[in-house]
Formats: sequence, structure tokens, C-alpha cells
Amino acid sequence: MGHDPLLEALQATSKAVERVLDPLLAVPEGNEKRVVEAMRYSVFSGGKRLRPFLVLSSAELFDVARPRALRVAAAIECVHCYSLIHDDLPAMDDDDLRRGKPTVHKQFDEATAILAGDALLTLAFEILADPETHSDPKVRVELISALAKASGHQGMVGGQMLDIYAENTSDWDERSVCRLQQMKTGALISFAAEAGAIMGHATEKARHSLQAYARGLGLAFQIADDLLDVEGSEEAVGKAVGKDADSGKATLVSLMGVERARQQAEMLSDQAIEHLSGFDNKASLLRAVAHFAVHRSS
Amino acid sequence: MGHDPLLEALQATSKAVERVLDPLLAVPEGNEKRVVEAMRYSVFSGGKRLRPFLVLSSAELFDVARPRALRVAAAIECVHCYSLIHDDLPAMDDDDLRRGKPTVHKQFDEATAILAGDALLTLAFEILADPETHSDPKVRVELISALAKASGHQGMVGGQMLDIYAENTSDWDERSVCRLQQMKTGALISFAAEAGAIMGHATEKARHSLQAYARGLGLAFQIADDLLDVEGSEEAVGKAVGKDADSGKATLVSLMGVERARQQAEMLSDQAIEHLSGFDNKASLLRAVAHFAVHRSS
Repeated sequence: MGHDPLLEALQATSKAVERVLDPLLAVPEGNEKRVVEAMRYSVFSGGKRLRPFLVLSSAELFDVARPRALRVAAAIECVHCYSLIHDDLPAMDDDDLRRGKPTVHKQFDEATAILAGDALLTLAFEILADPETHSDPKVRVELISALAKASGHQGMVGGQMLDIYAENTSDWDERSVCRLQQMKTGALISFAAEAGAIMGHATEKARHSLQAYARGLGLAFQIADDLLDVEGSEEAVGKAVGKDADSGKATLVSLMGVERARQQAEMLSDQAIEHLSGFDNKASLLRAVAHFAVHRSS
Repeated sequence: MGHDPLLEALQATSKAVERVLDPLLAVPEGNEKRVVEAMRYSVFSGGKRLRPFLVLSSAELFDVARPRALRVAAAIECVHCYSLIHDDLPAMDDDDLRRGKPTVHKQFDEATAILAGDALLTLAFEILADPETHSDPKVRVELISALAKASGHQGMVGGQMLDIYAENTSDWDERSVCRLQQMKTGALISFAAEAGAIMGHATEKARHSLQAYARGLGLAFQIADDLLDVEGSEEAVGKAVGKDADSGKATLVSLMGVERARQQAEMLSDQAIEHLSGFDNKASLLRAVAHFAVHRSS
């Protein structure tokens, strides 16, 4: 474990992002502190920190100062955690367990969970608007615009709406499921990979390569998640497994079968790595994470 | 009715803001359209449009182009509507009726209501980040930063957390209720009144006058709301009344009594108007709305 550069980088990312978020989530003295405690419970509960890692790695390609990249990474992690809190709610996926711990509405209550999600989404934009994130306000509004598009009704929220629809219909094919995943998880992963390019004033070509990389990575990651839901254990995965099959929900795994889905994930991961061919050694961790995405056990 | 300049201005604001929001909320062809339909149901369901009105009126003081001010007004209305959708949820205030119509989770379902709120909050930031809102990216990030602070855990969301706490405790005094209201509704109203000053590069002094005006207006408006909850009819008010008393919730009206609360609201409204003394005739509608706030029946 200790000698795997990717795992070391993921762990370092996690610690660094938590150091940025800690003062931004200072617990107030008033009774509104409960919502901040719930926000902290969510963002400090581990997780792979894939999105922050993509921000830092793409920022490094363009020599962006690490403290700036870390603030963007923190903002994206806030958005990711907000989406998990709301998705876990009884009215949505109704999950009791997340990363091996009670979900926010179980640990606190539903009202606090709704508000903690709302506040994390808001905090993400507050972080990005701050001059500490980038000295150029043009870059800050571009980050904000891209994040809003990736996470709103045309991105993540739209994808979650499709996901709820998917649970109540049998009329799904591979193409619709890919579109759903591209919106639900792909859009935010793409933004994470593009953020470094935006901060570093990269060329259009470099930005498009990262977009293409992230699209493949995101879908490969999602198929691997669906495979873990079928084949993993609750203990290893840290959340309930077998949920998709129990609910009869269409996934690429249920539509393609386990073997073809695994092949598809590996092919997407290989293609993602191909898109990084213009970046040389600097992109080695981005290559490693595309490989890791389809060869992990949790 | 037709000859009251304030009512005419409020109606014109409402129509103009809806014209801005209509294309921003174009219904997509995919099955994610349900969340957009819920967003439209919320933002096109009337309401006083007080916050958009404050944006337009403050923008006029500094000769800000109306199309720009309308986009900021639309963004604030998105945030206001998001907060209403989430506050009405069963896990929060559990309201079935809003503006005389079923609440979003009643008309659609809880999951769609949560997502529609999330997407409206996100859309607000997307609108503000767009160059159409202001040519100067510095102004755009300043608007975004101020909106995020007004609506996050230190503002509106924090106030809603306090409000939930207030329902479960008897340990409240006038000062704590004022702080709650300042966070829950005051912060966004203040932002609406300041937005014109930000867009118009106003002096610090002008900006502070508008802040002070909005603080008084917001609290006066809230006391008037609480009085309507005690004295109004469901038909006139457009939502359930008598809820605060039924739940034993502390409000300034329950703490001060009806008579003192009414006097307090009038005093706050008078003070708010005083803070506009530097603005001459241009601020006549802002003065009129402070008067209207405490003399309305819905």
C-alpha cells in the first residue's frame, strides 16, 4: 500500500482538501451549529476524493499553484457531498449507510440533512467566488459557470431525476443509461478534470483532451461501481450492495451482463488513457487513476 | 388598484422577471424534464416578487441597465423559490399549500421537489456568472459571493436551521428571534437591496444606507407575516394560517403581543424609510414598499 504512488497521492489529496475545508466549516456558537456539524460529518467522512484528485492532477499539468487548486478541489468535494446527502434521503434512494457510517439523515435527521446539502452546494460557489481561489475574476466566473452547468438540471440534478425515472420503468437501453450516467456523475467528473485547464489558461486542445479523458473515466468508474454492487460485499464497499438488482433498476451491468460490462469498462479506461497522450510523464497519475477505476474493490 | 404606482411596479416586475426566466427554464425533451416542470411550477406561481422588485429599484438608483438588473432579479427569485420548496417539505414545515396552490412536493413528489430546489439554487449562480448579467467579471463574482453568503449556512440556511430549533424549544427571547429572522429572510432581502449598488459601483455610504433600509424592511415584513398568521384568513393569505400558534412556535408576535408587534413593525418601516433620505425622488417606490410591507392583507 505505502509504495503505490496513486494511493499515496489520493491520501495526500484527502488530507490537503480537509485542511482547506476545516476553517471554511468553523462551527458557530449559535444553535444553527447543527447544520454545520452535519456538513462536517459529511465532508470529513472519508471517501476516495476522486474529484479533488482530478482537479489537483489537471492543475499540475498547467503549473497552477497548489493552494489555488486545493480550493477548487474543496469546492467540488462540497458539491459531491451535497449530492450524496440528498441522494441518500428517504424520498430519494433511501440509504442508511454511506462509506461504512450512518448517512447524514440517519445520524442527524431529514431536515438537517436537506439543509446541510443546500449549504454545501452554496458553500462551493462561495469558495470559487473568493479572490483566494484565483486572482483573475474572469477565471473565477468561468469556474462557477462550468460548475453550475455540470451540477444543475442539465447535469447532475437532471441525471438524478433520470435515475429516479429509471427505477420506475423497464424501457431502458444502453444508450439511455449512458446518457443518464454522463449527466449524473460524468458531468461533475469532467468539470473536475477541466478545472485545472481553466485555472491554467490551457489551450482548447488540451482542454478537449481532458474532457474526453474524463468522459471515459467517469463511465468506466460508474460501470465498476455497478459491478461492485453486483459482486462486492457490503463490508468492503461500505454501503448496501445488491440494491440495483433488488429494485430491478437498469444499469449497464444488468443490460450487458457482467462479462461484457467488465470488458466495456476496461476499454473505456484504455481509451481515457489514450486521450492523455499529449501530456507526457506529467499525466502519469491521471493514467494510474483510470487504471485504478476499473481494478478496485471498493 | 390600477392607479397605485407601487402595485403597478410590482406587477410589471413580476412579468419582466418571468420573461427572463422562461427561456432559462426551457423544458428539455428527455425524461429529466420533470424536474424542469417542477422548477417552472414554482417560479411561475405568482408571489409578490418583493426581492426582484428591490433589485430593480436599487439598480435604478444607480442607473444600471434594466436588462442586467432583471437577470439578477431572476437569480434572486430562483433562490427564494428554492428556499420555499425545501421549507415546505414534509421533513421541514410540512406545508400543503403555497400561494393558494399545492406545494411542489404535493403537485409532483418529494424527490422531484428536493431536486427542483437544488436545481433552482444552482441556476441562480449560473445566471449570475453569465456575461449577459454584467460585462465586468469582478461585479459578477461580487454578486455571487454576496448571494452565497446571504443564502448559505451563515445566512438563510442557518436561519432555517434555527427556525426548526425554535419549534422544539421554549427558550426564546426577542433578540434570538430577531437574529433568526435576520438570517432566515433578512439576509436575502438585504442582498436584493444591495445588488443594485454592487452593479452600479455605488459608494460605500450608499451601499450601507441600502443595507440599513433592507434590515428594517425585512424585519417589518416578517412581523407583518406573523401578524397575518395570527389574524389573516387562509383564503386571503394563500397558505395555512394559525400554524405558529398551533405549534407553540415563538415569533415576535407571540413574544410581544399583537399590539406591540404592530407598533414595532411600523417603527421599523419608518426607520427604513429614513435610511433612504440621501436618495431623493428616485427612491419613492422603495419608500412605498416599506409602507406597503406593514399595511398589506396577504
